[in-house]
Amino acid sequence: MDIDAIHKALANPVRRQILAWLKQPEQYFSDQEHGLNLGVCAGLIDRRCGLSQSTVSAHLATLQKAGLISSKRVGQWAFFSRNEETIQAFIDHMNQGL
Amino acid sequence: MDIDAIHKALANPVRRQILAWLKQPEQYFSDQEHGLNLGVCAGLIDRRCGLSQSTVSAHLATLQKAGLISSKRVGQWAFFSRNEETIQAFIDHMNQGL
Repeated sequence: MDIDAIHKALANPVRRQILAWLKQPEQYFSDQEHGLNLGVCAGLIDRRCGLSQSTVSAHLATLQKAGLISSKRVGQWAFFSRNEETIQAFIDHMNQGL
Repeated sequence: MDIDAIHKALANPVRRQILAWLKQPEQYFSDQEHGLNLGVCAGLIDRRCGLSQSTVSAHLATLQKAGLISSKRVGQWAFFSRNEETIQAFIDHMNQGL
């Protein structure tokens, strides 16, 4: 677990918002055609953010490099979901160490 | 509470280490001549870090701007201590929101 990278990833309100949305995909991305068990399609995340595809793509890459989310590629689509294990390990680390 | 600033401050191992030392000043700074209830003198933090005064001073300023520590000035000395209230509020926020 790269604590520096996780804090850097979380030091941005858009990235924290994306993580929050991905926690409840049924609530925020119920209009996705593919099953939400795959994760959430990048395009829907772009639309909800109201930011350009390249900006959101950079945010998703930062979250993924920090290990907070992972992606699955299906054909031309990329689907993103939270890495609950890493997120919980980070929370535990904060609770114990800070 | 400035969540962005707190994450930025915590995204550095030296700053996390300083926070950890300040949690147990009796253990890490027992040789301080002034009472530890004042906080810990910048000079002792410099020495324990093994880094230059200016580097440690910048780290302390980052922690202070994020609200994680505060300082008290006594004569020519600056003493630093943790803001437990802010730290706990941040931990609570992480536990609920992440």
